[in-house]
Amino acid sequence: MVTTIVSTVELPERAREMLKGYGVDLYELPRLSRDEQLNALSKAEVLLCWCGREFDLAGNIGLMRRLKVIQTFSAGVDHLPFSAIPSNIEIYSNAGAYSIPVAEHAWAMILTLAKGLHRPVLNAREYLGNELTSPRKVFEATLLVLGTGGIGREIARIGKEGFRTYNIGINRSGRLAEYFDEVHPTSRLLEVLPRADIVAIALPLNKYTMGLIGERELRALKRGAIVVNVGRGDVVREEDLYRVLKERQDIRFGTDVWWVHDGHEEIPPRTPLTTLPNFLGTPHIAGGAQRDIAEYAIMRAVENVIRYIRGETPVNRVNRDDYI
Amino acid sequence: MVTTIVSTVELPERAREMLKGYGVDLYELPRLSRDEQLNALSKAEVLLCWCGREFDLAGNIGLMRRLKVIQTFSAGVDHLPFSAIPSNIEIYSNAGAYSIPVAEHAWAMILTLAKGLHRPVLNAREYLGNELTSPRKVFEATLLVLGTGGIGREIARIGKEGFRTYNIGINRSGRLAEYFDEVHPTSRLLEVLPRADIVAIALPLNKYTMGLIGERELRALKRGAIVVNVGRGDVVREEDLYRVLKERQDIRFGTDVWWVHDGHEEIPPRTPLTTLPNFLGTPHIAGGAQRDIAEYAIMRAVENVIRYIRGETPVNRVNRDDYI
Repeated sequence: MVTTIVSTVELPERAREMLKGYGVDLYELPRLSRDEQLNALSKAEVLLCWCGREFDLAGNIGLMRRLKVIQTFSAGVDHLPFSAIPSNIEIYSNAGAYSIPVAEHAWAMILTLAKGLHRPVLNAREYLGNELTSPRKVFEATLLVLGTGGIGREIARIGKEGFRTYNIGINRSGRLAEYFDEVHPTSRLLEVLPRADIVAIALPLNKYTMGLIGERELRALKRGAIVVNVGRGDVVREEDLYRVLKERQDIRFGTDVWWVHDGHEEIPPRTPLTTLPNFLGTPHIAGGAQRDIAEYAIMRAVENVIRYIRGETPVNRVNRDDYI
Repeated sequence: MVTTIVSTVELPERAREMLKGYGVDLYELPRLSRDEQLNALSKAEVLLCWCGREFDLAGNIGLMRRLKVIQTFSAGVDHLPFSAIPSNIEIYSNAGAYSIPVAEHAWAMILTLAKGLHRPVLNAREYLGNELTSPRKVFEATLLVLGTGGIGREIARIGKEGFRTYNIGINRSGRLAEYFDEVHPTSRLLEVLPRADIVAIALPLNKYTMGLIGERELRALKRGAIVVNVGRGDVVREEDLYRVLKERQDIRFGTDVWWVHDGHEEIPPRTPLTTLPNFLGTPHIAGGAQRDIAEYAIMRAVENVIRYIRGETPVNRVNRDDYI
């Protein structure tokens, strides 16, 4: 049986050749007429997509009667219309594809905030004497990473190897992961937060992590803590964040991810967060920075689909119960 | 023979006790009257000083007839009035005392510039499409470090262990140093500059390094290079830097050190460098950030003096020929 694969974006030539080697029928939607697209969707067994703005999955799912597998190019799948996807369809994410650039961005925000580079002034006394800019040491700091997946582990690795940090992890099970000195289950978050000099949030957004960081958690932070979020905006409660950051100028907070309203990540956000001097924001660019990063991510997604074609077990299977 | 030590600053209690253990006569100038100060200086065998604004060495050297050793708290000694210091007096620097905080600051500037955090905008297309902010990968980049002393080695270590950089060093002899993949003598600087994605300047200022980086060297930089200076401002020619940075907006340049005029580091500098969008400056705060860093540096200087008292060989002996 020949496998029919539909991609919602054009694939790199390397990916096409790799798939041809497995004798698949490959359709890339942007290269097709509307009629050809409908035909391709009706035959699709595997869908490769961002399933974001480029392709309305909920609106098209009814056309894909033979669909068995959805493989996303994105690492997160929180934007998928889970309730519209029939339960016999397997969903695979691209977790880990952006670990290196996103972890680099997390560390860039950590160091920018730690050394006051988000608002440098040229007067040394003012720089050193101001709570907003006074340089903080990173070497041997205690680093708390929420999420021990690909991105979280890479953040922990850079901390451990580059700056000799003591690494505490938080994940659902509390199971130890590489580069961590200790890992605790999410239920113990409030106990470990006050120990951290640096907190990095690298959690996927699902029903367990939505709004996990609220006023109580933020107030539990150590004096002078640095916090960065490269997971998903909605892991943090926006109103609570604004309120606590406004009061506690000792906390420095950086984010590359924002809050979703009506299905879209809104930048700037609804609170005046970006006006706060202890806040640093970038417009969700950590993972999508360069052409070669996107190509790498697409190749990883294609390689996972090849596992499926060969009858192997693909990685990053999504458990829908985490989202519904 | 009891050794008489004069410090131009008050010492931490730990340092006093350590020195008392060796039965020295210790005088701390800020605790003395003017007459007592003159008496102390006349007996001093060892002088502990920044020998910066706090103490006019050239004006007081004539009073210190018994002086044998000058030990600075600073890592650099380029500010000392070498021609006024009798040649029988040994000078020791505090090289290495600031390696960790200064290397951290160097990496903070590198990552801030690499990820466009020195001028973040909230529009993703603008952020990614602009040469001034588009994120650059650090992982596996080629890192060129000028100077393989304490600071240079720590910059190289963070690069290698944290970000898997390929490390090229430049020093006077070209002798290999820890954490470097290759090291070349200063004479080959122009050949290696075009290979570097990131350049970190961690050189002391002496007659060999003064003005080492001029227009020719800056123009030899690879397209998109990131350069940071945590050594001394005058290693780079200010006018040349301004001219090249203004023309080549692909280069991003950060500095914590500035140009000396009439014996003082002037901030802001005489050119309009700080108005350029591809320039990031901090007011020489990398090493002197926190109270505990200064205390650590003072303790290291005191420990070096104890080597002298015990008849051992102190470290960081300054070769005056490098400066005169």
